[in-house]
Amino acid sequence: MTLNETHDRNLKSWIESANNPGTDFPIQNLPFATFLSASSDRSRVGVAIGNMVLDLRACVHERFFSDSVAQGCDADDLSFLMAAGLVHSSELRRAISGLLAENSERRPEQCLVPMSECTLLLPTRIGDYSDFYASIHHATNVGSMFRPDNPLLPNYKHVPIGYHGRASSIIPSGTPVQRPMGQTLDAASGKPSFGLSRSLDYECEVGAFIGVANELGKPVSIEDAGSHIFGLCLVNDWSARDIQSWEYQPLGPFLSKSFATTISPWVVTMEALEPYRVPRPARPAGDPEPLPYLDGAIDRDGGAIDLTLEVRICSRKMREQGIAPLRLSRAHFRELYWTLAQLVTHHTSNGCNLRPGDLLASGTVSNAAKDSRGCLLELTWRGAEPLTLPTGEARKFLEDGDEAVITGYCENASAIRIGFGECRAIVQA
Amino acid sequence: MTLNETHDRNLKSWIESANNPGTDFPIQNLPFATFLSASSDRSRVGVAIGNMVLDLRACVHERFFSDSVAQGCDADDLSFLMAAGLVHSSELRRAISGLLAENSERRPEQCLVPMSECTLLLPTRIGDYSDFYASIHHATNVGSMFRPDNPLLPNYKHVPIGYHGRASSIIPSGTPVQRPMGQTLDAASGKPSFGLSRSLDYECEVGAFIGVANELGKPVSIEDAGSHIFGLCLVNDWSARDIQSWEYQPLGPFLSKSFATTISPWVVTMEALEPYRVPRPARPAGDPEPLPYLDGAIDRDGGAIDLTLEVRICSRKMREQGIAPLRLSRAHFRELYWTLAQLVTHHTSNGCNLRPGDLLASGTVSNAAKDSRGCLLELTWRGAEPLTLPTGEARKFLEDGDEAVITGYCENASAIRIGFGECRAIVQA
Repeated sequence: MTLNETHDRNLKSWIESANNPGTDFPIQNLPFATFLSASSDRSRVGVAIGNMVLDLRACVHERFFSDSVAQGCDADDLSFLMAAGLVHSSELRRAISGLLAENSERRPEQCLVPMSECTLLLPTRIGDYSDFYASIHHATNVGSMFRPDNPLLPNYKHVPIGYHGRASSIIPSGTPVQRPMGQTLDAASGKPSFGLSRSLDYECEVGAFIGVANELGKPVSIEDAGSHIFGLCLVNDWSARDIQSWEYQPLGPFLSKSFATTISPWVVTMEALEPYRVPRPARPAGDPEPLPYLDGAIDRDGGAIDLTLEVRICSRKMREQGIAPLRLSRAHFRELYWTLAQLVTHHTSNGCNLRPGDLLASGTVSNAAKDSRGCLLELTWRGAEPLTLPTGEARKFLEDGDEAVITGYCENASAIRIGFGECRAIVQA
Repeated sequence: MTLNETHDRNLKSWIESANNPGTDFPIQNLPFATFLSASSDRSRVGVAIGNMVLDLRACVHERFFSDSVAQGCDADDLSFLMAAGLVHSSELRRAISGLLAENSERRPEQCLVPMSECTLLLPTRIGDYSDFYASIHHATNVGSMFRPDNPLLPNYKHVPIGYHGRASSIIPSGTPVQRPMGQTLDAASGKPSFGLSRSLDYECEVGAFIGVANELGKPVSIEDAGSHIFGLCLVNDWSARDIQSWEYQPLGPFLSKSFATTISPWVVTMEALEPYRVPRPARPAGDPEPLPYLDGAIDRDGGAIDLTLEVRICSRKMREQGIAPLRLSRAHFRELYWTLAQLVTHHTSNGCNLRPGDLLASGTVSNAAKDSRGCLLELTWRGAEPLTLPTGEARKFLEDGDEAVITGYCENASAIRIGFGECRAIVQA
């Protein structure tokens, strides 16, 4: 995919809120979501523009689209658009960009709904959810807490480590998250007991929605991997650390993760992200190069995405006192040890089939700097170094009433800022 | 659920093949499947009876069912029947039993299709697949090979260990399985390389299909767990041991399992299995009792199922020479360390929602005896003790052309033998 007029940083929309500096949703972004509005109890597909949502079903019914562009726009969710492939979504993107551009002769004003009146849902039915571990800094930090003698395992620099996650408990931003019960080991007695987790954590991640499927038994090459990704969202892979440390050997995290995973509702397409592609980071001296199946020119030259992620926390007391959420971290997605294409290629290298709407998450995005760490486990070093909130409250892990908010945006010298919206949820008892 | 006339061991069918001793599908079984027949390209739901399939859509159209019984019988797969709950499936079972009993006044002969003319599909769309590790013998054997210093981890006797599996690559019995590629560590050089797995294995397991859902955030108590299981099938959790040993730390098995999982197509309902319920085995002296959330009277008294599992292998040469498959193992499902109810309760104890059609597998069923071990890894002790086939061929792991066949049956003094059909597949290059 190459840049086209939809990426032009000087392009404006006739919808004024889309031209505000700092909006997540200028006309250069055009992310998709599935939503409900007051006008119908049937879900529909929409595109964010400023503080409005363009209702694609309404656009079809009002004949703003040609027949070929209209395919999948009348659907109940994004499943058709994801599966249809990049040629179709690119054609649709150009049509939408044309309708919303300030010089458009036809303005679909009757197809716009204020975003504040929409309920944003999961983008699609997620068949399988896989979660990776692509930040070497996160892996090293966590490893040094769980296995002090052996922080980074010998496979890490060769294998894009991942595991199967739970699809049923993925929920859209805004849905409260219930603190889970579970088995934990009491360090003093050496005995397990069952009760509420006392080490509830967030994990700041990026999720990739699969678009075009691959058949079972047909791996996707590193050069083709990009054509199988539809777009990205933000992911909070909630984790109960006390349950995790007791259950995770030998088969990996299970109930410590499966109680909830929050995703941001807007899917930013890979086409919108094209201007922010950057070369895959060079590996540190002494590190092995990726094995040939994980190495390719396209991925080396533009496999990383210059996406900045931020995590904020807001306690109940902070909300009551009108204090804005406190930023805990800022990290760069581009610095991960493995690219999205490498994750797709590795995942399918055994013949495993990825289906449209499957979600692959990056794993916690932490960089080398301490203030880039994407979870409390790392930020407080398993509670040894508590954080202090503006109210004076201390935090080792999340307390009931705490809200975690993940945001993300891309910006560079030649392209305008585009954002991902929010991935947020309040912890409840 | 209690025994009723559908379980009567003296009950006969007017379909002669259902009365043959040794059939898997006497009138006391009545398992469900989703199938295609030559008459239509739309899938439908059927019930096995002897060597025939009762087409439930045809039964609806020919008005063999009352309106309430007919619900879900015209569907494309078992999703409605699974979700509808035990009262409905019990009512349907009685109606089918009545129609097929030798004293039936109405015989749905026009609704029968020879099983040999049916293509058996996956029973339903499987949302999430979770795989457990409920045989302590399997866990100990595998542990002693992968971690000689630490075979059975300290959590095993407290936590029903499990992990999330891959739903997309679950395939019905009879579909060939392609030997996967993957990263493995070369012991001599200490370096990883990418290529075909050389340690392909089967795992003999039992799968439980979830019927009634639980809501996110609402755990299922041990006493209620039974009402959330619709029925059981046989599972071959194919495993590439060389990929597994290199990738599995710290997040568990991933690509070593996700290339294929074969299930038997017939779902034997929990109602059909009622006569074979037996008390949960007493734990060995010195072992901890289950924590209270995993302990209950119903489960203690009848939480185990007296189901015998057998694995056979047939190499290409054996087939060419007309040699019958060789039985490698026979094991008893009742001896697992954790019951199905404990697996369901543990899985939901953190609030995780199970949805209709979700599949929970037991993990490899191995008992204490050597000839009960449910995978080649254990039977050949990671290749150190190869098996000899009737052709003289040696086997450490599976070779191309090998077919693995899992069967299962229940039988006791007061109840007739019922079987699960076959879970089989040939390994191909």
